[in-house]
Amino acid sequence: MKKTEQPIGKVGTYAYQTEVYSLDFRGRLTIPTLGDYLLHAATCHAAERGYGYEDMEARNTAWVLSRLAIEISDEIRLSEPIRIMTWVERVERIFTYRCFEITTSAGETLGYARSVWAAIDKTTRRPVSLVETGLSDYLTLRPCPVSLSGKPAAAEQSPDAEAMSYTVKYSDLDINGHLNSIKYMEVMLDLFDIETYRTRSIARFEIAFLAEGRYGMRLDLYRRSLGDARYATAICHEGKAVCRAEVEFR
Amino acid sequence: MKKTEQPIGKVGTYAYQTEVYSLDFRGRLTIPTLGDYLLHAATCHAAERGYGYEDMEARNTAWVLSRLAIEISDEIRLSEPIRIMTWVERVERIFTYRCFEITTSAGETLGYARSVWAAIDKTTRRPVSLVETGLSDYLTLRPCPVSLSGKPAAAEQSPDAEAMSYTVKYSDLDINGHLNSIKYMEVMLDLFDIETYRTRSIARFEIAFLAEGRYGMRLDLYRRSLGDARYATAICHEGKAVCRAEVEFR
Repeated sequence: MKKTEQPIGKVGTYAYQTEVYSLDFRGRLTIPTLGDYLLHAATCHAAERGYGYEDMEARNTAWVLSRLAIEISDEIRLSEPIRIMTWVERVERIFTYRCFEITTSAGETLGYARSVWAAIDKTTRRPVSLVETGLSDYLTLRPCPVSLSGKPAAAEQSPDAEAMSYTVKYSDLDINGHLNSIKYMEVMLDLFDIETYRTRSIARFEIAFLAEGRYGMRLDLYRRSLGDARYATAICHEGKAVCRAEVEFR
Repeated sequence: MKKTEQPIGKVGTYAYQTEVYSLDFRGRLTIPTLGDYLLHAATCHAAERGYGYEDMEARNTAWVLSRLAIEISDEIRLSEPIRIMTWVERVERIFTYRCFEITTSAGETLGYARSVWAAIDKTTRRPVSLVETGLSDYLTLRPCPVSLSGKPAAAEQSPDAEAMSYTVKYSDLDINGHLNSIKYMEVMLDLFDIETYRTRSIARFEIAFLAEGRYGMRLDLYRRSLGDARYATAICHEGKAVCRAEVEFR
C-alpha cells in the first residue's frame, strides 16, 4: 500500500501486487479479492482524511457498504501490479458515493467501480447523518463510467434451480460479528461452476447488501439466468433477501 | 511488504499491517490470515533468492506445503503492525524446512512457525530432488522454538460428533486448481463454535497436508477432543484423510 503524498488531495492512490498463490485456477485475480483491495483503498483514503474506522468509532458509528458495482475490461491483467485510485463523488444525507479507477502500474485503465455507503449508529444500527464526517471537503467530479443499476433482479423469485444452502461460520464474520462483505461475493460467485470460469470472465458485477448475516444463520442461495450471459443471484434468510447481485460474463 | 536490503542475506524480513475489516469478530488476526502472511513471506524470500514460483515453474516444478506448525503467545497483538522473518533451516532430498519468527514492529516476539515443503514435478505430481534449487546457500541455524509433532492424531477414527460435509468450490481453488492451503485451515477452524472463539484463543496450530483437494470433491470434516483444550481435526474424502490438524487453545 502506497500512501498519497502531503498535502493530501481529493484522490487517493494505492498500489497492489497480487501473490501467485492468491490467484484463481486460471491465474486471475478474483472479483472478491479485487473487492478486498477496493475496501482497503477506501479504508486508507478515509482514514488519511479524518473519517476512517477509528474516527467513526469515536462517534459510536461505523461505515456500512450498501452497494458496489465493478466493471472490468481485462481480468487477466488485474493479477499484475495494479493501482487503485479512489475518491468521493457525492454526499447525501444518508448515503455517500465513492468511486474507484483500477489501472496497471503504468496507468492504463483496467476497470472502474462505484460504491454506496451509509454510516450507522453502532448502538441503534440506524443510519446517521453524514454531514459531520468531513467527506464533503473532498468531493470531486472525476469521471467514473460505471453505473449502479436500479436494483439487482430478484433471483429468488424464479430461480433456475433449487436453492443451495449455506450456514454462516466463524471464518465468515467481520469485526462487527456479521457476515463480511467479501464472503457475500464469494458465496454468490460459487453458484457458477468451474466450466463457466474455464470459458468466461466477469465483465460486470453489482451487489446490493440488504441485511446483516449473523453467525449460525442458515442462508439459501439462488441463481437465475437473465439471458445474454447475465445472471441474478440472491442470498435469502427465511424467505427474505439479505443480499442480491447481478453478474455479467464475457 | 518490505524487501530485505542488498546484499541479500539468509533471513528475509517482511512487514504486514492488518486492516480492521479483515480481523475476526473479536478484533484478532485469524490463524488462516496469519498463514496467508507466512506464505507471502515464504514466497518473497524464495523469489528474491532464485527459487521462487517462476524459477520452479521454469523447471516444470512447484512448491507444495506439506506441514506447518504455528505457536502464538499473543493473538491480539498480531492485529497490530507485525514483522515476519523467515529462513531455511534444513534441506533434505525431498523435504526442506522453513522457519518463521513473528514480531511486533518493535521486534518483540509474538510467535514462531516451522514449515515443511516438497517440490513436485508438475506433470508427474511426484517429488523431485531439492539439490538444484539453490536453497542450501541460505541455510542458517537461527533458533526457532516450535516443534513439528510426530503427526496429528486421526480425528476421523473416533470423532466427538458426526462429520460435517463440505464441497470444494471455485473460490477454494488455488492456481494449481487444488483446494488452497488457507482454505483447509479455515474449514478446520470453523469446526469450533463461536463460543470457543469468544472465550479462548489459539496457542498452537499444526497442520499436515496429505492429499490434494479438487473441485467438486465432497469432504467430511471431523473433530476429536484430545483433552486439555487440545483437539484433532481431519478432512477426509471417501474415508481417506486429505488433511489433519491439531489445535490447542489457551
